[in-house]
Amino acid sequence: MKGNLLYEGKAKQVFKVKDNETQLVLSYKNDATAFNGQKKASFTGKGKYNNLISAKVFEYLLEKGINSHYKRALNDTEQLVEKTTIVPIEVVVRNIAAGSITRRLGIAEKTVFASPLVELYYKKDELDDPIINDQHVFILTDATELELKQIKAIALNVNTHLKEFFTGVNLTLVDFKLEFGRDALGNIILSDEISPDTCRLWDKDTGEKMDKDVFREDTGDLLEVYDKILKRLEAVK
Amino acid sequence: MKGNLLYEGKAKQVFKVKDNETQLVLSYKNDATAFNGQKKASFTGKGKYNNLISAKVFEYLLEKGINSHYKRALNDTEQLVEKTTIVPIEVVVRNIAAGSITRRLGIAEKTVFASPLVELYYKKDELDDPIINDQHVFILTDATELELKQIKAIALNVNTHLKEFFTGVNLTLVDFKLEFGRDALGNIILSDEISPDTCRLWDKDTGEKMDKDVFREDTGDLLEVYDKILKRLEAVK
Ligand SMILES: Nc1ncnc2c1ncn2[C@@H]1O[C@H](COP(=O)(O)OP(=O)(O)OP(=O)(O)O)[C@@H](O)[C@H]1O
Ligand SMILES: Nc1ncnc2c1ncn2[C@@H]1O[C@H](COP(=O)(O)OP(=O)(O)OP(=O)(O)O)[C@@H](O)[C@H]1O
Ligand SMILES: [Mg+2]
Ligand SMILES: [Mg+2]
Repeated sequence: MKGNLLYEGKAKQVFKVKDNETQLVLSYKNDATAFNGQKKASFTGKGKYNNLISAKVFEYLLEKGINSHYKRALNDTEQLVEKTTIVPIEVVVRNIAAGSITRRLGIAEKTVFASPLVELYYKKDELDDPIINDQHVFILTDATELELKQIKAIALNVNTHLKEFFTGVNLTLVDFKLEFGRDALGNIILSDEISPDTCRLWDKDTGEKMDKDVFREDTGDLLEVYDKILKRLEAVK
Repeated sequence: MKGNLLYEGKAKQVFKVKDNETQLVLSYKNDATAFNGQKKASFTGKGKYNNLISAKVFEYLLEKGINSHYKRALNDTEQLVEKTTIVPIEVVVRNIAAGSITRRLGIAEKTVFASPLVELYYKKDELDDPIINDQHVFILTDATELELKQIKAIALNVNTHLKEFFTGVNLTLVDFKLEFGRDALGNIILSDEISPDTCRLWDKDTGEKMDKDVFREDTGDLLEVYDKILKRLEAVK
């Protein structure tokens, strides 16, 4: 069913689907990049963890009424998704301060936000994905006011449900990044991936960082940590 | 009437007023700084231009119904103002793309925005005044939702009137930065300065940059340009 390679990103390859113009195969790579591609490494097995964890997340969200591009996992490293035209913004939801916001705004790591903080970034590698405000979105993209409202509302719903999802496996959802696209009918659809590459997850008992920060900050073994998450999720059923 | 020096900034000294706790004297310095203080120089006479131009701007705004901290010019380099507690955000209004936004978002210089673009920056020298969104304002400052609405509305009103004001002296108002504070009664008041240090002004005929960019970009004589603006404003009356 997999057709030609359409696009190769830092974390995934995107393939056409034979005889189906509205679907794609996302193939998760073993590469890890951080700080807008400045730091790079490869971890045999990483693609499998992100593919299977992302699949579980999208399946859970669907059960909670949140539709996404996700159709089904095809094998350990690949999933079938609805093809969308990605809106070039990255939507970050933060429950607790960590990472770039601590440096950018001088907010201490672990500061809990009174309500979830939504940030928008312009998805543009050449510009290092700069943070933007709502008005910039309308200047830089073709998103409408209604679509941006929808995108933010979905992001906050995802947050509500994923906090509970990860609490079920003893993890605190610190923050995460989402991407949205438009499907063939012009509807806004949650796309891309939701994995330990795109979420910050802290163990509720030990505070251990169980996400890509172990690679960014060289504080642990990425594969070990991703394996723990998948095992915990598989244990839930 | 001038009391003790309260605070020395990069562009102005702030003095107490004897026997009056609610007023201050702003003394405009000859120093110019750019790129968050990385580039510095001094221009004999600059303080006079900024003081007198800022005075004319605040007088015009008052005639148009926009109140500010400004009371009156005391002499060539000093003005009497209402003391306010500055809300640590810088409000930038852009009509045309120039300066940091061209680099940050890759928008070509001279691009005209369909409607004025309002940007908020966190006024924090140690962090290089990072750009922020509305939610960050509530995390980083004590401003309320209503106050932020008020601040943005005043900024847009100022833009409407200053575009006309500068058109009257053959200048295009490209962008500008405002600061707001709370007076003794807790009301939000337009504060700080509005001068060629804090506005971008382009000659309508020649396109010549007639503001601090001549210093930032080493493209002209700052004093000559500021003198031209003051002379044009004095000629209007
Ligand atoms: N349903 C989809 N339809 C079309 N493209 C998609 C879909 N889901 C994700 N994509 C895009 O697939 C591309 C490859 O993913 P990958 O994570 O490798 O991207 P990247 O741009 O290199 O990294 P980054 O996540 O930092 O943007 C991305 O541009 C992503 O936006
Ligand atoms: N009415 C006012 N009451 C109290 N402080 C004021 C008032 N108007 C302006 N200020 C403050 O006076 C200080 C001195 O001005 P100056 O322009 O030199 O500041 P700066 O902080 O060094 O430069 P920048 O404009 O980059 O913040 C600033 O902190 C400004 O916010
Ligand atoms: Mg990606
Ligand atoms: Mg200043």
